[in-house]
Amino acid sequence: MDKKPSVGYLGMGIMGSAMAGRLVDAGYPVTVWNRSRDKCAALEAKGAKVSETAQEVVETCDVTFACTSDPTSARAVVFGEKGVLAGITKGKRFVDMSTVDEECVKEIAEAITAKGGRFVEAPVSGSKGPALQGQLVILAAGEEALQKEVQPCLDVLGKRTFFLGEVGCGARMKLVINMVMGINMVALSEGLAVGQKAGLQGKDILEVIKEGAIASPMYGLKGPKMLDGDFAPNFPLKHQQKDVRLAVDLGDKVGQSMPLAAAANEAFKAARAAGKGDEDFSAVYATVNR
Amino acid sequence: MDKKPSVGYLGMGIMGSAMAGRLVDAGYPVTVWNRSRDKCAALEAKGAKVSETAQEVVETCDVTFACTSDPTSARAVVFGEKGVLAGITKGKRFVDMSTVDEECVKEIAEAITAKGGRFVEAPVSGSKGPALQGQLVILAAGEEALQKEVQPCLDVLGKRTFFLGEVGCGARMKLVINMVMGINMVALSEGLAVGQKAGLQGKDILEVIKEGAIASPMYGLKGPKMLDGDFAPNFPLKHQQKDVRLAVDLGDKVGQSMPLAAAANEAFKAARAAGKGDEDFSAVYATVNR
Amino acid sequence: MDKKPSVGYLGMGIMGSAMAGRLVDAGYPVTVWNRSRDKCAALEAKGAKVSETAQEVVETCDVTFACTSDPTSARAVVFGEKGVLAGITKGKRFVDMSTVDEECVKEIAEAITAKGGRFVEAPVSGSKGPALQGQLVILAAGEEALQKEVQPCLDVLGKRTFFLGEVGCGARMKLVINMVMGINMVALSEGLAVGQKAGLQGKDILEVIKEGAIASPMYGLKGPKMLDGDFAPNFPLKHQQKDVRLAVDLGDKVGQSMPLAAAANEAFKAARAAGKGDEDFSAVYATVNR
Amino acid sequence: MDKKPSVGYLGMGIMGSAMAGRLVDAGYPVTVWNRSRDKCAALEAKGAKVSETAQEVVETCDVTFACTSDPTSARAVVFGEKGVLAGITKGKRFVDMSTVDEECVKEIAEAITAKGGRFVEAPVSGSKGPALQGQLVILAAGEEALQKEVQPCLDVLGKRTFFLGEVGCGARMKLVINMVMGINMVALSEGLAVGQKAGLQGKDILEVIKEGAIASPMYGLKGPKMLDGDFAPNFPLKHQQKDVRLAVDLGDKVGQSMPLAAAANEAFKAARAAGKGDEDFSAVYATVNR
Repeated sequence: MDKKPSVGYLGMGIMGSAMAGRLVDAGYPVTVWNRSRDKCAALEAKGAKVSETAQEVVETCDVTFACTSDPTSARAVVFGEKGVLAGITKGKRFVDMSTVDEECVKEIAEAITAKGGRFVEAPVSGSKGPALQGQLVILAAGEEALQKEVQPCLDVLGKRTFFLGEVGCGARMKLVINMVMGINMVALSEGLAVGQKAGLQGKDILEVIKEGAIASPMYGLKGPKMLDGDFAPNFPLKHQQKDVRLAVDLGDKVGQSMPLAAAANEAFKAARAAGKGDEDFSAVYATVNR
Repeated sequence: MDKKPSVGYLGMGIMGSAMAGRLVDAGYPVTVWNRSRDKCAALEAKGAKVSETAQEVVETCDVTFACTSDPTSARAVVFGEKGVLAGITKGKRFVDMSTVDEECVKEIAEAITAKGGRFVEAPVSGSKGPALQGQLVILAAGEEALQKEVQPCLDVLGKRTFFLGEVGCGARMKLVINMVMGINMVALSEGLAVGQKAGLQGKDILEVIKEGAIASPMYGLKGPKMLDGDFAPNFPLKHQQKDVRLAVDLGDKVGQSMPLAAAANEAFKAARAAGKGDEDFSAVYATVNR
Repeated sequence: MDKKPSVGYLGMGIMGSAMAGRLVDAGYPVTVWNRSRDKCAALEAKGAKVSETAQEVVETCDVTFACTSDPTSARAVVFGEKGVLAGITKGKRFVDMSTVDEECVKEIAEAITAKGGRFVEAPVSGSKGPALQGQLVILAAGEEALQKEVQPCLDVLGKRTFFLGEVGCGARMKLVINMVMGINMVALSEGLAVGQKAGLQGKDILEVIKEGAIASPMYGLKGPKMLDGDFAPNFPLKHQQKDVRLAVDLGDKVGQSMPLAAAANEAFKAARAAGKGDEDFSAVYATVNR
Repeated sequence: MDKKPSVGYLGMGIMGSAMAGRLVDAGYPVTVWNRSRDKCAALEAKGAKVSETAQEVVETCDVTFACTSDPTSARAVVFGEKGVLAGITKGKRFVDMSTVDEECVKEIAEAITAKGGRFVEAPVSGSKGPALQGQLVILAAGEEALQKEVQPCLDVLGKRTFFLGEVGCGARMKLVINMVMGINMVALSEGLAVGQKAGLQGKDILEVIKEGAIASPMYGLKGPKMLDGDFAPNFPLKHQQKDVRLAVDLGDKVGQSMPLAAAANEAFKAARAAGKGDEDFSAVYATVNR
């Protein structure tokens, strides 16, 4: 890839548009597409081309990335009318960065490769901020040769890329990480809630945590915002809940009992039911603390 | 405190002996006591005096510290025959670094101050390693003037001291932090267990965590040992479970529902029932992963 | 006991007043006492004598029963000024029907017997309705000979008396039964909530349950009231929660992990925090179903 | 239906063979089919015809029933080669008594009706014993006219039939009931485990339960067997777990947080992981009580 290859990006949600923006900034010729065209405006303003169909993106670009929010939309982008699959011919390269379950990514991989296409799954760890700063952690799996070919692009998007094995391993790793993250978030919420009701200062709790064994970037970043009631979404709660649920389902499949993940799932469900699905996942604090 | 004051230390468990050792190394004249005398041998070898009773330590030292493992032993040290209380006279200084519940520390504080003694509670965050390195986080509460007088000693033991308010606040903060820590530990255990059963490498999971939002000193330190089955105790599981249980009880008192803390408590109880109470609290992984 | 012995009853809450009322109706000379005297009015109207102190009741009656709502009040009635213990002399008979934890009942038993008194614990299974109808299940433990002597009174109060062994066994049995009951109640609440949100009729759910393996008097009695939002207290939610909590603590003591009991405890705590502590324990449905 | 219609029955598992057997005994001409033919032997011995394909059963019988163990097999029986769908023509009657999720039954209903077939879902409440005795509770939904036509058959199989509404309502009701049942079973397991560890007799616990508000046929039937370690399957644990999981998923869909169902799911998963999937669902007691 001496000359920068042309790059397609499908799905202009929070994550997709951040990543596509970085690719434009890095000098790649980028073509974007989104189900509702208006979400492409920001990228268009940055210099990206906008395409009418996912099929056209795949047909016209050297490599196409996608990042959608759940299995339903991931499937729709690939299998829908004028979707990715319609544009796949022998040798076409498709990298799916959506966070989906294993079943879904395998279905997509099989369909792509059955038509001669090449496939890598590459879900990411990290939300809006890291996406904008190219600091995502990329969890690649599938065809290792393709992963190596697109690594220059991945290096624009993330600080580190793992190659984890066969298709499905990226999805599974993502779920495992996000599940642990979700539990940690509910844990902090319970700690802040009980501590403050017991007469402690919320900011003292956060300071003590910062000095100790469980200090983490997430606690440092989200903690003060939670106390302020600032739940502007970096990673929407409904997606966090979906990941915890899918992780619990994975445990079901492999025979692993996970009582804390299951309890966290119910906590996020309660928050979703209370209307917080589109807020940041840290908004679970508001429900825990009622 | 121009000249170094004489310091007593009661309770030569893992934490107490590490802290007393640092005070000896820092040049304080230290007198130690333990219920079973043989645990004083290491400190005696370092140059500490050994006393036959807690009462004598209090009577002969300028300030006396204590660190015991639970409310029962904390009460025994204070209220028992020839205990701390027997040695308290007007102006005597007592700093209790045990991790106990609020009720217990208040009982102790009232008894000490009723006899004219001065009292600070100062439970710590951090286990054996930080204790040996003087890197504990100290959660002081009670008489602020006394806390300031003993701060030179506390600076030998910890990297940061918080003053949190009235007696009981230290206990409460400790419980809140340890509860969040306990949940985070079970969360990692569930993540490693389900991930490996689903075909991921345990060390890949730890690496991905290290790169992301939930990286923490605890995950970095404990994670690799957990995969190796190395559960040599820094913080015994039975004490971790006790803290989670006390935090849940605190929630009961202040009216805070804490389903994850409750589930983590049951996970640690299952590990204790499986004979892991005296191993490191990370040994909960072995029970989660069965 | 050819001639009916004189009977004292301490504690005129829902349960105590129902039981004392039955003893009056059965022809026993009954003397009652309550911390706040006004709650004795109904019994006085029925013909019971009212005493100014628990001590006097014990001194003047052949046998004294007590039924208080929690360990704190049970201890207050026995150990408080002019309490039961003050009236105990050699051979005095005391039957404590309060639902308390094992530690509490043992403390009371030791104090009573140390003064030469005779003691039976006899917590009951069943709430207001069964208490009024003499249909309680009585869980006796302690001195078996005394249990046999007071059995005629117990037969007025309950449909069946179990003798379970040494002091503490009654408390433990009560907790175990009430814990299972509490879980079953939250289970029904979750079932009604999810079923109705999924388009089923609440009354169809109750009818199907009635026809099947999990039909129970509690589901039959409480179910329709729950759908009607009728939470008039037979067994107050705060007492149900206390029993689940004490059962979880018992599990802690004997090394039994109980994740469902722990989750139910948190559900009842959430309901208590939502202001439903004094409503019927079935009011947990209102919190589950929000 | 003056003359008894010819009846097909697909799926000769525990439930299907019990129901088909009752239809034979009631004088219906019955044709059975099973994926592995050997499971048809008992019915053949009773006088049922055995067919080589599900398609043939549908084509040759007036009405065809099916009872399979999960959505995968339910779909296979309908959509598989020479399956139910292949035999459906205008007016053909199909009654699916499998316990499946709503999505699955709707898929089947749409496929059947799209070819002009008539469809009722009719999952049952009750296991082997009630199935053999015609004491099932039948949860019908779909085409009400068809339900009325086949009611004479349903009366052979069950003691009561509910008509619950549109397709999907039977599945949902079944899940709700089985979820509550599953929680109640884990509740009893926790109660027996903690009670016995605390010195109570298991049979005393069962007796006290029998006298009180939570007495139920399930507790009466299963309790003594659990104490004896008799876990011969009436309702296999893996199917119970599946139902709890599907109920939790239903909660996910409709926005209902269900912490106890989630915890029970994990308890059954732990039992499945411990090799008890094919034993009775009461075998969860063996895992809870370890």
